[in-house]
Amino acid sequence: MTKLKQMRNLIKEKELILTAGAHDAISAQLAEEAGFDAIWASGLGISATHGVPDASILTMTEFLNSTSIINNSVSLPVIADCDSGFGNVHNVVHMIKTYEAAGIAGVCIEDKVFPKRNSFVNSKQTLEEIGEFSIKIKAAKEAQQNEEFIVIARTEALISGLGVNEALERAYSYEDAGADMILIHSKKSTSEEIKEFASKWKGEAPLVIVPTKYPNITFDEIISMRIKMSIYANQSLRASIQSMSDIYNQIINDQSTRKIEHKISSIKKVFQLQGMDNLEKNDKKYTYVQS
Amino acid sequence: MTKLKQMRNLIKEKELILTAGAHDAISAQLAEEAGFDAIWASGLGISATHGVPDASILTMTEFLNSTSIINNSVSLPVIADCDSGFGNVHNVVHMIKTYEAAGIAGVCIEDKVFPKRNSFVNSKQTLEEIGEFSIKIKAAKEAQQNEEFIVIARTEALISGLGVNEALERAYSYEDAGADMILIHSKKSTSEEIKEFASKWKGEAPLVIVPTKYPNITFDEIISMRIKMSIYANQSLRASIQSMSDIYNQIINDQSTRKIEHKISSIKKVFQLQGMDNLEKNDKKYTYVQS
Amino acid sequence: MTKLKQMRNLIKEKELILTAGAHDAISAQLAEEAGFDAIWASGLGISATHGVPDASILTMTEFLNSTSIINNSVSLPVIADCDSGFGNVHNVVHMIKTYEAAGIAGVCIEDKVFPKRNSFVNSKQTLEEIGEFSIKIKAAKEAQQNEEFIVIARTEALISGLGVNEALERAYSYEDAGADMILIHSKKSTSEEIKEFASKWKGEAPLVIVPTKYPNITFDEIISMRIKMSIYANQSLRASIQSMSDIYNQIINDQSTRKIEHKISSIKKVFQLQGMDNLEKNDKKYTYVQS
Amino acid sequence: MTKLKQMRNLIKEKELILTAGAHDAISAQLAEEAGFDAIWASGLGISATHGVPDASILTMTEFLNSTSIINNSVSLPVIADCDSGFGNVHNVVHMIKTYEAAGIAGVCIEDKVFPKRNSFVNSKQTLEEIGEFSIKIKAAKEAQQNEEFIVIARTEALISGLGVNEALERAYSYEDAGADMILIHSKKSTSEEIKEFASKWKGEAPLVIVPTKYPNITFDEIISMRIKMSIYANQSLRASIQSMSDIYNQIINDQSTRKIEHKISSIKKVFQLQGMDNLEKNDKKYTYVQS
Repeated sequence: MTKLKQMRNLIKEKELILTAGAHDAISAQLAEEAGFDAIWASGLGISATHGVPDASILTMTEFLNSTSIINNSVSLPVIADCDSGFGNVHNVVHMIKTYEAAGIAGVCIEDKVFPKRNSFVNSKQTLEEIGEFSIKIKAAKEAQQNEEFIVIARTEALISGLGVNEALERAYSYEDAGADMILIHSKKSTSEEIKEFASKWKGEAPLVIVPTKYPNITFDEIISMRIKMSIYANQSLRASIQSMSDIYNQIINDQSTRKIEHKISSIKKVFQLQGMDNLEKNDKKYTYVQS
Repeated sequence: MTKLKQMRNLIKEKELILTAGAHDAISAQLAEEAGFDAIWASGLGISATHGVPDASILTMTEFLNSTSIINNSVSLPVIADCDSGFGNVHNVVHMIKTYEAAGIAGVCIEDKVFPKRNSFVNSKQTLEEIGEFSIKIKAAKEAQQNEEFIVIARTEALISGLGVNEALERAYSYEDAGADMILIHSKKSTSEEIKEFASKWKGEAPLVIVPTKYPNITFDEIISMRIKMSIYANQSLRASIQSMSDIYNQIINDQSTRKIEHKISSIKKVFQLQGMDNLEKNDKKYTYVQS
Repeated sequence: MTKLKQMRNLIKEKELILTAGAHDAISAQLAEEAGFDAIWASGLGISATHGVPDASILTMTEFLNSTSIINNSVSLPVIADCDSGFGNVHNVVHMIKTYEAAGIAGVCIEDKVFPKRNSFVNSKQTLEEIGEFSIKIKAAKEAQQNEEFIVIARTEALISGLGVNEALERAYSYEDAGADMILIHSKKSTSEEIKEFASKWKGEAPLVIVPTKYPNITFDEIISMRIKMSIYANQSLRASIQSMSDIYNQIINDQSTRKIEHKISSIKKVFQLQGMDNLEKNDKKYTYVQS
Repeated sequence: MTKLKQMRNLIKEKELILTAGAHDAISAQLAEEAGFDAIWASGLGISATHGVPDASILTMTEFLNSTSIINNSVSLPVIADCDSGFGNVHNVVHMIKTYEAAGIAGVCIEDKVFPKRNSFVNSKQTLEEIGEFSIKIKAAKEAQQNEEFIVIARTEALISGLGVNEALERAYSYEDAGADMILIHSKKSTSEEIKEFASKWKGEAPLVIVPTKYPNITFDEIISMRIKMSIYANQSLRASIQSMSDIYNQIINDQSTRKIEHKISSIKKVFQLQGMDNLEKNDKKYTYVQS
């Protein structure tokens, strides 16, 4: 079964698709081990692993390279965070062809102008005109070769302080243009505005949220709002930062690694994630015995 | 001051150079924050972030790409773990030119045949002939354009169970061929054989160790052996694996992120590492005010 | 229809598959325009566009990048020249997965040890043991996901001066290991040894030749030898070198471009190859009219 | 001497810098052989080798990759055609740091909005506000680390039909912002408007032209206009297209390569461009003789 089919099946069959943000092969593999359903190739996370701001500094080439590495390391379907689509409608068309050819299950693009800025910074967030972004969604859907490929339209109307009505108007327009799912993003510390949006939403496209700023929401609450997918976009990135910082400081302070060995995963675990077992199996399977 | 100069100064001025293994920009930046002196762009770590075994599966192109990302994200000098040099002497010459042009301070190559296998797997480790590897070191040194570029010769004689005398013979040959430093690697759980090697070493090239398998050794013990550099090659990788696995499992178990927010770094910390502050400063500095 | 299917159909239906060596999108597109059936992503050509010798200096990453660009620019199936497989059996397995995922129709690997050297240089060409290379072919075939993917085994026995019998022995072994086609290479200035090989070949795998060094052979002669595919591997590269050299020299000599305009293709032709027409069509199709 | 220094010396010492557009290593190497002074890593040409329109479809990563290949293959300094700077002022700052770190001698950015379109298509060309583009030039100059790095400001005022006065106003503003040279582009079939611009230009920044559409202009005429650099941006690309198309068609028509061998460069010439001689020299220099 292709990953495109897998993603379509998740939408059909799961009440709530649990999606983990990943920034490299390891974070994706651990999400699969923990039981997540799908992977979000996070723009914030991939930018961070490259040491640059989440502000359209990395190119599509760099994002796709990281996304493909993630995709090849897990059996789960991967949704690519494609920011505002890397330019105009022609860039979006090129992007869809390129991501689809790489075997990615779907992409998400947001209605901000290029170059975009992370939704949680204080800078002004300028949205694209509804009509212009809707055309991008239409072009994206017409560019895909396989009908199961997924395009998620993300509206930043709430992030920009434009309110639930603007968000709804945009979501309906994007659904009309062909969007397979609607991602409604919020930076409020409670889920109130998300709840309001979801309760008023009469469209057929399933909803997606990214509860980074309202971490108290539970799976049950999300399900009760009839939201189909919840993306835990950056928790693994932030866990890794905390732990790596702690371990480095402890090495310096202890002047040795003796006290940290039990806190960190084993080398064997690293090998397991890398697929060393399979390589050693092939050692035996493909041994050439000189006669 | 160039990074090549910085690295040379560390060798001259520091009793013990503390080097942290990094696998991406974040792990490198956090090592710099914690006070390490230099960065080791780890072959094991970079392979892991790509989801493939540490067995010469990744190409030089992929290693250099990751190494350059690391190099651009810190002000510390970076030493690239270049496995066995990606092929024969011509590949080594090409490698030196390419890494040096990318601004990397130095490389380390080991005396195993290509394709190599990680030193801690149980597979047989086949070493190159002393003479053949010495020629690689010679060619590497003659290929570099800037005399401050560093080539570290790593011997796997102890890893291969050939004993301290073989290791010494190899180290002297590599020093004669021009190696700037000698990395002596061991997978014993104590530092005894490293200690024996160091006490018998009469060469002028400073010694380097990677105490992954003998984690109890302290900075003072290392200094007392007259070892110049200690590489903590994979502790941050393993810390990140442990913490990401824990956090993913907790999200699934708690059915929410509410209990993990205090355990993981803030979004603000992510922004700081990415250099978002500098970008926002440039927002003001380079604002165009339409007249 | 996928390109894998297309390639299989060519083998079934064409008496002689005419394959053009390409080194970039342009050379591939022009081959398609001229009526060739398939494209050979040439190792010599791709190395040349990168300014390095055809001696395993470029990595698999660089070859695949160029090969994908070629593949995306034409509707013809592409066979990738994969030299000796970039290392050992594990590298071959990784290679097959990577090339197949990129949509390449097939690969060709040759029985020389890594790092290889171009077949037409005077250096000694060292062949792999028959058994060892046969295992690589077997591993390659078992690694592919889609049964239509093609693995061509190329023997350099004639290039190495080992004679027709050695070449036949190797070809039978590679066919037994699963090779879909056998490429028999020769650097003689006539086709005599190719003819002898073909007449003695009793295998079922179709034969492939690269008549660079015996350019006088005609399509009819090739067909009469029951050879299925002929690769014109580097003629376009060499044509481009001659013409670019001439044009540069004429600009310098004439101190103007006035006399060369009629000798070179128009800017309009460049635009056509790039697909500018289609982009302009999309301009109209996806115009946003602000209301 | 670094390439930055070389480029600065050319500006100081040459009356007219003859610059050849290149799209890969071969085209660049042949330009050096023919006696050109510098290389223009052409956006049109690099897009063409990738099979995509010259319309900001390729990313900065892809352009830089091709530009670095070109830079590493010649001893001449390379000026990178960087279109409109790949986005906003932050993208320009990132671009400057990245290109400078790669050893490129200088970049050229043009005053069109991103995504740009090739200057010779009929589509409307939208220019950036003078003030906004001037800030990009200022930011570019402040981002460079080495004072010898060159930033060329290219105005498309004539291309957009805005006339010589607008072009002059823009050129003065860009010079004030720090531009090292001014590229004045025209698509007229004579050099009249270029001549008028040059005669009215009172700035100190040297002028650059790209006489693609007015091919009759001679070196002497250019010198008489006090223009410092002339870029022959795409003639080698167009020569290669014509010759490859001819050769492919002739192979198909002749059903053999027998009549083309004398028209195309030799395999030996290919080897020479690739540096095979040097590799064979190293074969001898670095031979390991087993004792």
